[in-house]
Amino acid sequence: MQIGLVGLGKMGGNMRERLRNAGHTVIGYDTNPDLSDVAHLSDLVDGLDGPRAVWVMVPAGTVTQNVIDQLASLLKPGDVVVDGGNSRWTDDEKHARELGARGIGFVDAGVSGGVWGLKNGYALMVGGDEEHVERLKPIFDALKPHGPYGYVHAGRVGAGHFAKMVHNGIEYAMMQAYAEGWELLEKADSVDNVREVFRSWQEGTVIRSWLLDLAVHALDEDEHLEGLRGYAEDSGEGRWTVEAAIDHAVPLPAITASLFSRFASRQEDSPQMKMIAALRNQFGGHAVESAKKH
Amino acid sequence: MQIGLVGLGKMGGNMRERLRNAGHTVIGYDTNPDLSDVAHLSDLVDGLDGPRAVWVMVPAGTVTQNVIDQLASLLKPGDVVVDGGNSRWTDDEKHARELGARGIGFVDAGVSGGVWGLKNGYALMVGGDEEHVERLKPIFDALKPHGPYGYVHAGRVGAGHFAKMVHNGIEYAMMQAYAEGWELLEKADSVDNVREVFRSWQEGTVIRSWLLDLAVHALDEDEHLEGLRGYAEDSGEGRWTVEAAIDHAVPLPAITASLFSRFASRQEDSPQMKMIAALRNQFGGHAVESAKKH
Amino acid sequence: MQIGLVGLGKMGGNMRERLRNAGHTVIGYDTNPDLSDVAHLSDLVDGLDGPRAVWVMVPAGTVTQNVIDQLASLLKPGDVVVDGGNSRWTDDEKHARELGARGIGFVDAGVSGGVWGLKNGYALMVGGDEEHVERLKPIFDALKPHGPYGYVHAGRVGAGHFAKMVHNGIEYAMMQAYAEGWELLEKADSVDNVREVFRSWQEGTVIRSWLLDLAVHALDEDEHLEGLRGYAEDSGEGRWTVEAAIDHAVPLPAITASLFSRFASRQEDSPQMKMIAALRNQFGGHAVESAKKH
Amino acid sequence: MQIGLVGLGKMGGNMRERLRNAGHTVIGYDTNPDLSDVAHLSDLVDGLDGPRAVWVMVPAGTVTQNVIDQLASLLKPGDVVVDGGNSRWTDDEKHARELGARGIGFVDAGVSGGVWGLKNGYALMVGGDEEHVERLKPIFDALKPHGPYGYVHAGRVGAGHFAKMVHNGIEYAMMQAYAEGWELLEKADSVDNVREVFRSWQEGTVIRSWLLDLAVHALDEDEHLEGLRGYAEDSGEGRWTVEAAIDHAVPLPAITASLFSRFASRQEDSPQMKMIAALRNQFGGHAVESAKKH
Repeated sequence: MQIGLVGLGKMGGNMRERLRNAGHTVIGYDTNPDLSDVAHLSDLVDGLDGPRAVWVMVPAGTVTQNVIDQLASLLKPGDVVVDGGNSRWTDDEKHARELGARGIGFVDAGVSGGVWGLKNGYALMVGGDEEHVERLKPIFDALKPHGPYGYVHAGRVGAGHFAKMVHNGIEYAMMQAYAEGWELLEKADSVDNVREVFRSWQEGTVIRSWLLDLAVHALDEDEHLEGLRGYAEDSGEGRWTVEAAIDHAVPLPAITASLFSRFASRQEDSPQMKMIAALRNQFGGHAVESAKKH
Repeated sequence: MQIGLVGLGKMGGNMRERLRNAGHTVIGYDTNPDLSDVAHLSDLVDGLDGPRAVWVMVPAGTVTQNVIDQLASLLKPGDVVVDGGNSRWTDDEKHARELGARGIGFVDAGVSGGVWGLKNGYALMVGGDEEHVERLKPIFDALKPHGPYGYVHAGRVGAGHFAKMVHNGIEYAMMQAYAEGWELLEKADSVDNVREVFRSWQEGTVIRSWLLDLAVHALDEDEHLEGLRGYAEDSGEGRWTVEAAIDHAVPLPAITASLFSRFASRQEDSPQMKMIAALRNQFGGHAVESAKKH
Repeated sequence: MQIGLVGLGKMGGNMRERLRNAGHTVIGYDTNPDLSDVAHLSDLVDGLDGPRAVWVMVPAGTVTQNVIDQLASLLKPGDVVVDGGNSRWTDDEKHARELGARGIGFVDAGVSGGVWGLKNGYALMVGGDEEHVERLKPIFDALKPHGPYGYVHAGRVGAGHFAKMVHNGIEYAMMQAYAEGWELLEKADSVDNVREVFRSWQEGTVIRSWLLDLAVHALDEDEHLEGLRGYAEDSGEGRWTVEAAIDHAVPLPAITASLFSRFASRQEDSPQMKMIAALRNQFGGHAVESAKKH
Repeated sequence: MQIGLVGLGKMGGNMRERLRNAGHTVIGYDTNPDLSDVAHLSDLVDGLDGPRAVWVMVPAGTVTQNVIDQLASLLKPGDVVVDGGNSRWTDDEKHARELGARGIGFVDAGVSGGVWGLKNGYALMVGGDEEHVERLKPIFDALKPHGPYGYVHAGRVGAGHFAKMVHNGIEYAMMQAYAEGWELLEKADSVDNVREVFRSWQEGTVIRSWLLDLAVHALDEDEHLEGLRGYAEDSGEGRWTVEAAIDHAVPLPAITASLFSRFASRQEDSPQMKMIAALRNQFGGHAVESAKKH
């Protein structure tokens, strides 16, 4: 089928390729003319036969809102928009309402797969009305991995991004789990070769996983990760997961600990630990380290 | 080769079968005569040609110590003992010393695989001197999964159980990660079918793993886990992981949170939350719930 | 000076009394006619000489918004409104804007002191423009404790509620600290009398505090808190503290742990621990406890 | 009464002074001859009339064990030893047994008060048999603060150090609570003066405490703690508190989070966050920061 694809970065560009490999007709638009198939977003819309489907794959927040606003005025009743970016699920209802007021359908799709998606397929978590989701089925089928898994219509508008958000929260805590274990093993006197321990875990253990395989790849490249700094960004979904948990009064200790570890990793020095040092000095005369020394 | 196997419970019994399937001669001993191949531990020792190898697969702590003590007097210099149970790594050095004083070798083996091990093989993490480990290689090869993974000689005596202990710590936090995500999804209004979300994650996602497959199995048996109580034991390794982290001053927030969640799951009521309730009542006149109502 | 006071519940009623004791003229309004000095909110406004000051002391959220909306139409330019309730700091900017559009000033005041405030005074954390704050100084002076502390003009509009919110976050973690320590002492075989340990801590220790004094009061009423259920509400500020921390990428492990402990205390059974139990059963054949037994 | 005091460092030296101010006869011994009243430990023992009391105030672990061993051979049946250092409660039983075998009594005393103890008195948490504790009452009375609090006979041998250990665990989490709140306030745009917020909290609030007073002192010396590094040691008791909690299956999330924050504060770079960075790079092509840049 035909589809418009807005945003041809690392993710969008690969998705265009995977869709074309599957025989679909893709008109891609990007603000970078080197990547774009057409000069203007309106050219993308004009190039599609109605009823149209347009997949939006741009950064969450202002950029996505801006594209949705433009599509709202360019598209026609009966068309449908998919937001495949990392939007917050609370934005989805707003977008569905805005587009729905003009008779345009809206579907949200959480997409997982990263740089491996082109080859292995993208896992898709989709939210929206059955009629809109059904229409996009050929596209979803082309993007998803072969085999029985990797796609779910999770519920109404917002459910796709909510499911993807929780996926990422789980991802944070799984990564933290391996990372904590790795650091502890590296500290153990008796263990000679932590990398080989990790490698051995790839079969027969309870903790075998794709992330474990990636950890072994990383250790093969740099056995003690000496070339890296212990610095990790967080992408929004981790924060939203904790906020959603607070909204629902669900305790999330492991996921939240993982998020906080990332926050701490980005601080050159910890203000709160300065206060701890100051208090210890006040009551116990414990020596403090002056900031100047560092 | 020949091997003695002490302890023929759920794990030991299946290991005997897997070893025999691989063509090894196994003499098994268990205090339960219905399971045992011989009447006494001494019969097991007498039945093996020297230099002997005896695999101990009994509960950690007193029971293991007791078997080691008996083997110390029954075995001969040049024999070797493997402790494949869930012993604390600090016990291994003691056992190696005690047996070494009589010329008997000692190897510790952390074993993962649970009820799936008979079919899929057991992941083995082994600690000990090269000469002792090398001698047991045919046994390890029979027990481990086919393929390149599932076995590591992690380091000197104690390294096998240390690596297995960390494996279990990671396992705690991974299980906690999926569990937190599952509870949050179950609370979300927009998501219709959490089980299908979990099922879809089995391919193409960052969080695909064997534990995720098991979660889907569990949800297929009982979609909302209504038949279960939220009650989880912990087996020792989780506690030791945190204690080892404290010894090495390594922060383990996610693994520790997972351990504490299990502790809390086993309390009918939380004493510490009684104190919170009491304090809120003292300063704010906040209503408390009396214990009698419940 | 004259002041209108909207909301005469547990907090507002006592504040009216403390203000009158200090010689101020207070016209109080409450929807409960038994508590109210006047029949209608408009009577309160009409009863005050201009420029008027009206203190709002009603539940945060819809009720506060509703009162602010009414006051916006009843008051005149030059009047000033104080929100002394537990509003979220993000609401303050909105309220200041809405009232400011009509020339009415706005001040936010975080108020601490609970049932003890009438006697000991209320700690006040205030946000707003200097001119509005200055005009209300006599009211703040009457409400605050005697002595040099208990009042701060923390910053611009929103700063008062932000400071109060953080105060409550700290309060959560301090309560959690004592509660955790109490539970551990209660479990220790060697300690005969935990209540007397707590009592002794009230002087000479690093951890002496007003909350500790309250803990001793509570233990004097019920030595082992057997009459209470371990169930604790949370009031909004704890949640907002964690959300503010997420906005600013500040790790708050102890405060967040305290919030999550409260969430968990309110669950009859823990869904996430059901998943842990289900997974343990899947891979290890570990016994589960069925929900029916409880 | 007469008492021997072994260890005249920051704590012991001040305690000698406070005891002498109260009219007691103190013979102090220290390995530093500038501090010591006598040349040898045996001179201290010889200088006291029997039945003797000797207070040991030296670093926990090997040093304390060494002094106990020496006193075991120097003292006579009917004498009594007090360990006032920061020994682990599990050492107390051992010491009591060793001394008891020679007819010498043993009392453990947890001592709080730091550099403020000389003036304000030391809070004492004491464990041991009634007869030994009773004999030392005049010494405890002289050391403790005036007023009804600051002293408890908590239980049998070990209970004093156990109670002090829990005190320190609570102290960790209280310090963490203020530290987290301080960092969040420092990040808030609306709050002008965090120090004044802290100062105001010293009266009328739920969180007023001696530690809060110390925080204000510290901020008066260095408003943003710019001269300090966010680096905090931990002294043993925090670790033992968590270990005791694990032994008793008591969840201690806030205290443990506080301990882990100290561990993390002492790492130049976080190994576990290197693994997080490596994994993000593997699956998402996320940029990593190389260690060289820092």
